[in-house]
Amino acid sequence: MPILLAGNNYGKSRVRVVKVVRRADRHDLVEMTVNVQFEGDFEQVHTAGDNSAVLPTDTMKNTVNALAKTWSGEHIEEFACQLVNHFLGNNPQVSRVRIEIEQTQWTRLDATSFARGSEEKRTTEVSGVRGGIEIQSGIENLIVLKTTGSSFEGYKKDRYTTLKETNDRILATAITARWAYRDASVAFGSCWQQAREAILKTFMERESPSVQHTAYAMGEAVLRDVPDVAEIRLTLPNKHCLLVDLAPFGLDNKNEVFVPTDEPHGLIEVRLTRKT
Amino acid sequence: MPILLAGNNYGKSRVRVVKVVRRADRHDLVEMTVNVQFEGDFEQVHTAGDNSAVLPTDTMKNTVNALAKTWSGEHIEEFACQLVNHFLGNNPQVSRVRIEIEQTQWTRLDATSFARGSEEKRTTEVSGVRGGIEIQSGIENLIVLKTTGSSFEGYKKDRYTTLKETNDRILATAITARWAYRDASVAFGSCWQQAREAILKTFMERESPSVQHTAYAMGEAVLRDVPDVAEIRLTLPNKHCLLVDLAPFGLDNKNEVFVPTDEPHGLIEVRLTRKT
Amino acid sequence: MPILLAGNNYGKSRVRVVKVVRRADRHDLVEMTVNVQFEGDFEQVHTAGDNSAVLPTDTMKNTVNALAKTWSGEHIEEFACQLVNHFLGNNPQVSRVRIEIEQTQWTRLDATSFARGSEEKRTTEVSGVRGGIEIQSGIENLIVLKTTGSSFEGYKKDRYTTLKETNDRILATAITARWAYRDASVAFGSCWQQAREAILKTFMERESPSVQHTAYAMGEAVLRDVPDVAEIRLTLPNKHCLLVDLAPFGLDNKNEVFVPTDEPHGLIEVRLTRKT
Amino acid sequence: MPILLAGNNYGKSRVRVVKVVRRADRHDLVEMTVNVQFEGDFEQVHTAGDNSAVLPTDTMKNTVNALAKTWSGEHIEEFACQLVNHFLGNNPQVSRVRIEIEQTQWTRLDATSFARGSEEKRTTEVSGVRGGIEIQSGIENLIVLKTTGSSFEGYKKDRYTTLKETNDRILATAITARWAYRDASVAFGSCWQQAREAILKTFMERESPSVQHTAYAMGEAVLRDVPDVAEIRLTLPNKHCLLVDLAPFGLDNKNEVFVPTDEPHGLIEVRLTRKT
Repeated sequence: MPILLAGNNYGKSRVRVVKVVRRADRHDLVEMTVNVQFEGDFEQVHTAGDNSAVLPTDTMKNTVNALAKTWSGEHIEEFACQLVNHFLGNNPQVSRVRIEIEQTQWTRLDATSFARGSEEKRTTEVSGVRGGIEIQSGIENLIVLKTTGSSFEGYKKDRYTTLKETNDRILATAITARWAYRDASVAFGSCWQQAREAILKTFMERESPSVQHTAYAMGEAVLRDVPDVAEIRLTLPNKHCLLVDLAPFGLDNKNEVFVPTDEPHGLIEVRLTRKT
Repeated sequence: MPILLAGNNYGKSRVRVVKVVRRADRHDLVEMTVNVQFEGDFEQVHTAGDNSAVLPTDTMKNTVNALAKTWSGEHIEEFACQLVNHFLGNNPQVSRVRIEIEQTQWTRLDATSFARGSEEKRTTEVSGVRGGIEIQSGIENLIVLKTTGSSFEGYKKDRYTTLKETNDRILATAITARWAYRDASVAFGSCWQQAREAILKTFMERESPSVQHTAYAMGEAVLRDVPDVAEIRLTLPNKHCLLVDLAPFGLDNKNEVFVPTDEPHGLIEVRLTRKT
Repeated sequence: MPILLAGNNYGKSRVRVVKVVRRADRHDLVEMTVNVQFEGDFEQVHTAGDNSAVLPTDTMKNTVNALAKTWSGEHIEEFACQLVNHFLGNNPQVSRVRIEIEQTQWTRLDATSFARGSEEKRTTEVSGVRGGIEIQSGIENLIVLKTTGSSFEGYKKDRYTTLKETNDRILATAITARWAYRDASVAFGSCWQQAREAILKTFMERESPSVQHTAYAMGEAVLRDVPDVAEIRLTLPNKHCLLVDLAPFGLDNKNEVFVPTDEPHGLIEVRLTRKT
Repeated sequence: MPILLAGNNYGKSRVRVVKVVRRADRHDLVEMTVNVQFEGDFEQVHTAGDNSAVLPTDTMKNTVNALAKTWSGEHIEEFACQLVNHFLGNNPQVSRVRIEIEQTQWTRLDATSFARGSEEKRTTEVSGVRGGIEIQSGIENLIVLKTTGSSFEGYKKDRYTTLKETNDRILATAITARWAYRDASVAFGSCWQQAREAILKTFMERESPSVQHTAYAMGEAVLRDVPDVAEIRLTLPNKHCLLVDLAPFGLDNKNEVFVPTDEPHGLIEVRLTRKT
């Protein structure tokens, strides 16, 4: 039967690591979850059951742990690059290594104590082939809400439209953003901070006529404020807060009481690049 | 057949409310999830299918929304008391009303914008009967970690014991605490803050020979620092961070690289009261 | 400061075990999650940091694994009893051992292959002191739905009531039931099956004027059909399926299209015993 | 600043619907969750805040409900096609409509009662442009386990490899498969059943030298047995069940007691097509 192996990849997902940097005056703490994926020449593994080209996913996990020991604990992008280089350098059968890392937030209480921060994650995805590496960084699940400065009017209506236009609503979303850097030599820490600030500032200060417009404005702000970013994607769920109808109880609800809902939710995605 | 209805209760769970207090210079935001439970004379509902005593759970939800409108938005304990009083006052068939509220954390970005805080919740449970009300407040899921100052030695060993003693380990936990107030007239805001600080300070400053000892010390600190607290319960999972064995790779892991795990986990509970 | 340790317990939670019984003609598979809790004389642990009475929770986990090896793989109630007896017999400092087990469903595909069943769990809680043991068994998260045979009418109305009476609605719930056995010598397998059948048959065949009535009828059926059950508690969320209003689109929705919702939900609990 | 909107899409996610088909002798039940996504000419929405081209996501939800009323309740693929055709036909500004549906499993108890099945979902994704429609169907989260017939040997080793070779291990996975049909006229029900059977039969009967080989064999079986399938992707996590070392307790664990783990896990993906 003429069947073709058109694509394949394999790896280890959800390798969790806590790295403690024990300095003289304080400890630093990094908690991250790492995914490793290989692409390459694995046809015989799939079709013939010949495992000789397969580096076990358990070894990937061990490698993450071993390299975490000597890593500085600074930026997850650097750690991802080290993993890519290690795996490409030692595995000629592998053509592409992709490392994804998400970093959990901890806030410092004192020199050696920490409290978990919000569910927002700092993320990176580094994808390397022989002769090139691509670095994306981002944010996942930055949940924000504004109680005014958001409207939704002038939209298209059809026979199934019952939504009322509003010039003042709650806007709540969980921002996921992922941007590509120009190259591997950028300042990972400050770029990430600048991009995050550009997104938050846009959310706060810009009037929102639609989630679409807000998403675009966020991307525009990042490209404007962070020259090392080449392109950016944003995903914004519209986490609807529904105004409760209190009229049956003789009460006038002037945007004071809402029901937050998880489903269904709007989902808006944009991708912005620099024109060339 | 001689069968007895030995107990019953009913209510509405997970009533989610966002309350916005629209002040001249800023908006305040409260997000909470409310559970309502009634106990009382409902034998005929269960045995005869006679619903005349049943206030629908949908009405409970509407009541939460309606009372949220006129509520100040200050302390969830006050809102819970208002709900208890409303339901007891209007439902002679009900002997006990129990209200549980958990409040989601939001941190202010500007006058009308907010970012979601950590997964820690401020909680309250108010239980009222005719002639009395009991108020408990607490914390849920305050996740903390310290990289040193924790040991576990000198424990009992049997034939199934393989754990090695350690005088320096990571201590990580997700604190749940619930304390009862002396009466309904306490300052809910400052008591809650003081209790939380006493717990965190103990976690940071006190050497931990065991999670049990730390849990007890936290409770002791709350009873010492907050006179209006009559008793307290603490539940502390031991969220094990396992030291990774890097010796096979020729590396010496001096408490630098750990695997955080979710299961299995230790679970330690204590209850402390004032001696009478 | 006069402070009292009013209660304490500790143990290991979420010890996951897969037990394979390798028979000549087939393998049997049991997957379970075990919680172990000790109560006893641990005052010095909490107040003085003296660990000599503490059997580590890691040892509890090892014990679960070791005893799983020699266990028959038959009924989780028996395994829980073995654990209780082991821990009480070897730990004079412990006054009460409580074992909770939930068993995950697997359905057989062939002699050695299995597919995961529904999210329903078979559960047991065995609590032992010197001179006595109490065994409860149950069901968790048995999700059922009926498209007719459920009404909700004749209930109490107040100024916050907007719910419409209905003589035909969807009834959907996730049954949690827990019943106590008369003693430790009952036939765990057949009792559990009979109790489950009594609950399901009641759900299917009995007209439901309210979730309260259905919950009571389920308990009554178990006590009637399973003489070895001494008492039973049932917890039934009312997982509302809301009829969608299609009138704005010129369509008549005759109980055909619904929105299933997770929150808020009703929550009904009953406890039935035999009269003495 | 030369910035380009390189891509955008928007829609409504997690529209949950229960559809009851009320026949003379029985009711049929379909529960599904629907995602709707539009691509098209929305540049002005993003850059100028002009909403005139935006059909609200609330209207998408209403449309799903309204079309569910007249839909037969047969195959989710047909319902997805109806939605695609409706939205493309009424929205000239939209160039592509993508509908994703996942169907929850319910098993029949009697004519009008149902119990929730396993967490396995039947899925479809239908993507339509003017002049063409593509239909993919699949399975999500079909959790299976075999207690023998799986080995992992002969793999590549490096300095970070500690895994022991084994010729007999547990193989556990949660199958996600998605296959593309040749065209829109196939028999959706029987094709889906045949594909599922081919996957399960391969899992059961075929010796597994690696998850990679098993994944490939599953894809091969579907392409062999279901001529209407043009290509297929499979994603198989390796949900490791770790053999517990009972030697310290004097016990010989002959593949009898395992710890099932969720993280980290292997992740294997393959894509197979027919050669042309």
